[in-house]
Amino acid sequence: MINIAILGASGYTGFELLRILANHPNARITEATSRQYKGKTVPDVFPSLRGFYDGLVFSDPEDFKRIRVDAVFSALPHGASQEVVPALLEADNRVIDLSADFRLRDDSVYRAWYGEHKADFLLKEAVYGLPELYREPIKDALLVANPGCYPTGAILALSPLLKEGLIDTDSVIVDSKSGVSGAGRGANLDTSYVEVSSGFKAYKVGSHRHAPEIEQELSVQAGVPVSVTFTPHLIPASRGILSTAYANLKKSVATAELHNIYAESYGKEPFVRVLPEGKFPDISQVRGSNFCDIGLFADGKRKKVIVVSAIDNLVKGASGQAVQNMNIMYWLKEDTALNLPPISI
Amino acid sequence: MINIAILGASGYTGFELLRILANHPNARITEATSRQYKGKTVPDVFPSLRGFYDGLVFSDPEDFKRIRVDAVFSALPHGASQEVVPALLEADNRVIDLSADFRLRDDSVYRAWYGEHKADFLLKEAVYGLPELYREPIKDALLVANPGCYPTGAILALSPLLKEGLIDTDSVIVDSKSGVSGAGRGANLDTSYVEVSSGFKAYKVGSHRHAPEIEQELSVQAGVPVSVTFTPHLIPASRGILSTAYANLKKSVATAELHNIYAESYGKEPFVRVLPEGKFPDISQVRGSNFCDIGLFADGKRKKVIVVSAIDNLVKGASGQAVQNMNIMYWLKEDTALNLPPISI
Amino acid sequence: MINIAILGASGYTGFELLRILANHPNARITEATSRQYKGKTVPDVFPSLRGFYDGLVFSDPEDFKRIRVDAVFSALPHGASQEVVPALLEADNRVIDLSADFRLRDDSVYRAWYGEHKADFLLKEAVYGLPELYREPIKDALLVANPGCYPTGAILALSPLLKEGLIDTDSVIVDSKSGVSGAGRGANLDTSYVEVSSGFKAYKVGSHRHAPEIEQELSVQAGVPVSVTFTPHLIPASRGILSTAYANLKKSVATAELHNIYAESYGKEPFVRVLPEGKFPDISQVRGSNFCDIGLFADGKRKKVIVVSAIDNLVKGASGQAVQNMNIMYWLKEDTALNLPPISI
Amino acid sequence: MINIAILGASGYTGFELLRILANHPNARITEATSRQYKGKTVPDVFPSLRGFYDGLVFSDPEDFKRIRVDAVFSALPHGASQEVVPALLEADNRVIDLSADFRLRDDSVYRAWYGEHKADFLLKEAVYGLPELYREPIKDALLVANPGCYPTGAILALSPLLKEGLIDTDSVIVDSKSGVSGAGRGANLDTSYVEVSSGFKAYKVGSHRHAPEIEQELSVQAGVPVSVTFTPHLIPASRGILSTAYANLKKSVATAELHNIYAESYGKEPFVRVLPEGKFPDISQVRGSNFCDIGLFADGKRKKVIVVSAIDNLVKGASGQAVQNMNIMYWLKEDTALNLPPISI
Repeated sequence: MINIAILGASGYTGFELLRILANHPNARITEATSRQYKGKTVPDVFPSLRGFYDGLVFSDPEDFKRIRVDAVFSALPHGASQEVVPALLEADNRVIDLSADFRLRDDSVYRAWYGEHKADFLLKEAVYGLPELYREPIKDALLVANPGCYPTGAILALSPLLKEGLIDTDSVIVDSKSGVSGAGRGANLDTSYVEVSSGFKAYKVGSHRHAPEIEQELSVQAGVPVSVTFTPHLIPASRGILSTAYANLKKSVATAELHNIYAESYGKEPFVRVLPEGKFPDISQVRGSNFCDIGLFADGKRKKVIVVSAIDNLVKGASGQAVQNMNIMYWLKEDTALNLPPISI
Repeated sequence: MINIAILGASGYTGFELLRILANHPNARITEATSRQYKGKTVPDVFPSLRGFYDGLVFSDPEDFKRIRVDAVFSALPHGASQEVVPALLEADNRVIDLSADFRLRDDSVYRAWYGEHKADFLLKEAVYGLPELYREPIKDALLVANPGCYPTGAILALSPLLKEGLIDTDSVIVDSKSGVSGAGRGANLDTSYVEVSSGFKAYKVGSHRHAPEIEQELSVQAGVPVSVTFTPHLIPASRGILSTAYANLKKSVATAELHNIYAESYGKEPFVRVLPEGKFPDISQVRGSNFCDIGLFADGKRKKVIVVSAIDNLVKGASGQAVQNMNIMYWLKEDTALNLPPISI
Repeated sequence: MINIAILGASGYTGFELLRILANHPNARITEATSRQYKGKTVPDVFPSLRGFYDGLVFSDPEDFKRIRVDAVFSALPHGASQEVVPALLEADNRVIDLSADFRLRDDSVYRAWYGEHKADFLLKEAVYGLPELYREPIKDALLVANPGCYPTGAILALSPLLKEGLIDTDSVIVDSKSGVSGAGRGANLDTSYVEVSSGFKAYKVGSHRHAPEIEQELSVQAGVPVSVTFTPHLIPASRGILSTAYANLKKSVATAELHNIYAESYGKEPFVRVLPEGKFPDISQVRGSNFCDIGLFADGKRKKVIVVSAIDNLVKGASGQAVQNMNIMYWLKEDTALNLPPISI
Repeated sequence: MINIAILGASGYTGFELLRILANHPNARITEATSRQYKGKTVPDVFPSLRGFYDGLVFSDPEDFKRIRVDAVFSALPHGASQEVVPALLEADNRVIDLSADFRLRDDSVYRAWYGEHKADFLLKEAVYGLPELYREPIKDALLVANPGCYPTGAILALSPLLKEGLIDTDSVIVDSKSGVSGAGRGANLDTSYVEVSSGFKAYKVGSHRHAPEIEQELSVQAGVPVSVTFTPHLIPASRGILSTAYANLKKSVATAELHNIYAESYGKEPFVRVLPEGKFPDISQVRGSNFCDIGLFADGKRKKVIVVSAIDNLVKGASGQAVQNMNIMYWLKEDTALNLPPISI
């Protein structure tokens, strides 16, 4: 039995870890921290979980130094994670960090987008936790940097094209749309029901912090620097990210050929579903699940390729992927607790 | 031209007053206050109003004493309104108060539900601003207490039955469902998109402050005390209140007969639409409008009557009714600026 | 391994059976019929299930006579079920029928609400599949009549009160609100997104077919006839039923006392969660799960009781309850494949 | 008073014409046809309009030949419009056609995307009804081809860039997202509430019929052929289109400079609102109104420009624009009946 601690467990990614792990036969949550709700039980804060963690009381995140478990999931915000991860590692916990703190390998890029880093010596050590690209190193990782939600969908959509050298590396556009839960759990006028429910908008145009993360990983795949124009939008739905990616093909490629390339890349992946030609993903079809669905179209006339991917931002885009990483780290079947159908309606 | 000031103009009822009055040929807003947004222009806060009030800057509500206009709409919360209304009246403004401060005539009832009252000498003077019941006194009122959103729908649904003495006065149940905007504009986890969007719940069961207001007005109609069991619920929609009211019939009455009674009561009302037999209202069919739609059913076998009413909580349940009151007070056509179709889709 | 056939598997309750049973270790679906989609694979029709039933092809429902499995779930509409159930039973299949065809024990009541019955000799034989009331007979049942969605929530909310004789049997009002999936899967203007998405309405006021089913079961509990005023409403959400039930208390009872009664009734039930005093259910907190959450309030002054229950109409209100019944019929752990947390956000 | 006939008045664009024109002081609807609802009154079909057109009965569209009014709005589907427009023109009606039938000037392009044309002799005569580009010819037009919803948003977003020659004409990408009402009114599983409400997807990738219409008009502005990659998506909202357009800048241009260019292009337009730097549109901020809001960003590093536009697809994208065209054709104030604030919440 793997003993688990969750830091910052009362946000949406924390909730999602609780929800998913309730169904995990080899893991047990022994600690869950929450600054805001310390002293309360899980069902006090999440009534849907009544009957599952009735005895689990949120503890004070200040006491993190005494934590000795097998795996710690840190669902703290960026900035806060870097303050606790070094001590957690020193105390022999393996850490899966869901924040942005250890995703960027280049500390100057981190500083440019997020500010100072208090544990930058760990940046090179952390493994980027996208199993489809880094399965082997994840197995032995002490610190896994769980990918961002937008980057997960964008990188899975585009990396086969870049690995194969099929597209111009300065032509990549990622037009992404996310459900509201991506903004986190909290009191906020901007994500209140009335403000959001019949709206749809672009935000942080040209300035979202997930752009450098996408560029970093696509550049690794391409072997040369890749430049990405990234525009996030807000969908009036709780969960889901759909990313529509565009790029210029270096040479004409048929849609069927693209399908072969993607089938080869992802054929053995338990959580990537390449859809049949002519079919495109819908966020509802992956909801609550760890799947990433991908659809493809090559526009021969315009020499452009369009790739659409869909994930549940809280699952494959956060907590499900974190559990997938844990399963890999502990040599369990990779889909343990994650082999459930989406709840599409 | 009627000069208007709106106090607390950056909430949803404030927004709605701005939206409705943009279309009023005889009124002009010369002042709008907002503690949170003072110094900002209207379109800074409400981008949808760009082009309508570009020069109007939210002013500091502390400066209320210098206000000299024709009509003041107070969209301040209860408790705050009573602090400014006496001075506003003294300065010869007529006041339409959208808070609960002057709706209850009995100061002991006010204290029991809301706490101390700092201007209780005005309770007897204020006119309850439901035109269908108080049109004549509204004409000359200096202070109009604009009804609560739930009470508006409930009272219009039930008052003909009580006026006619058709139902047991201790059998009234009002099961109401409101859109989220009824909770006001602000940063609040409980009304955030993710928490609310696929939910539906009862709240404040047995303890909502609108119950005594409904009882007060139905008792006036009945001529004897009426007891109301009132349960509010939250709909995952921005606007609208649907109230389903139940009562025991004293004697058997056919649905058609009920229709005649309601047709008589409301036949000349510009904003009450009694639907044909077999038809029941939908909040979408009144959205954005000042209408109250009513449907009726008499269950002969069980000797029960079911009346369903629908309003837009921000319009007939708040700002539209306030403008209707203003039109009456200034002897304008009662539907001025309010004679627009609902935006039902 | 229990072999399963699902008739009418391409509707929402069929989908939900597929979704839930994908996770069942002791059951396997060997046949799924669909008139509309015969010849297509499950993922052709339900893309979310890609990877789960890729080899399962919808078969022609006309061929039902050759079906020889352990348990048949009939998700056919009422009227159609009664045409196939006799033959299925004769061929030694046990049947769990999700339609209304075998829920009413009195054939004259059936005829009054649904029309002629072609297999009325089975009405007395069928067991009403609400485990909380009929667990023992379900164990040996050959034909289980799976309860209606509204009746499940209403009966669980009210039966302890009637069993204990606490309320007037002619005072019961059930004001229910259902998500749109309750209307079934199909092309229908009335349930199209644009018509429904910002609406809320009552429908079939005084004439919904679930009323006699609720009355039948509450009367059994009471030991005398119970009359129920039942009003269904449509929530702009896909899943969930919230029922707010009202009744007159015969004598004054404190809320705490009611809690004790409900705790006693449901304390050992795996799927009924009686909420702490002051807490009321929300459909989002049971979504995707087989739970029924219940909240209680006694209004001492008015001698009324208010009970609120929430279920997922497709799970506890249909397919989850059907699987619960199957688990009971085959002496499995009752929560097999159903012991997952709700997906509340 | 302008006499109006609406053909196909029971769809969403028909409803919207009824809604908008209820508020028009110079127009009166004398005829409204509907195949499906002929013989019914307007409030029978659209209960929200009760009180506005109670005496107006939907007539049989087969009888179109006898129509003699001033302006006919044809809200028939493409293919059907071309069958009636020649006769309507011959009978001296001026026609504003909301279908796609007369938008494409090149009959071979029409045939390639829509099939045969029965009135192609009118293609060159029709005026493309985008007032911002064709105000003068609209004044005298006998036949106005009201633009498509996607094209309206896309063309207004991009035409200043092409007119000024600032971008590469083969680099244009338009990633558009539309509310569900764009699919029209009807019984359709694909647009049913349950299928759509928590989803988001791309559709008709690389094959939507609005692509050639966008290319036609942008090519006119550019003076050379423009190639557009166009991807439509479905938003879980009733109204609104947001288009995010990308293009490669020929030379580096600052965002402020772009603002000047757009301010110049649209400064006098009553319905185009260019938002301040750093602000981007939201479909909710234009809902129910005829506005097109535009936000701009120039990515100097990547030499790309991002333009985001938002319209209400039923108003500026259809019926509002049609009324705007009518106002121009009859020399009325252009914003008559359209000068209302959006209903943003």
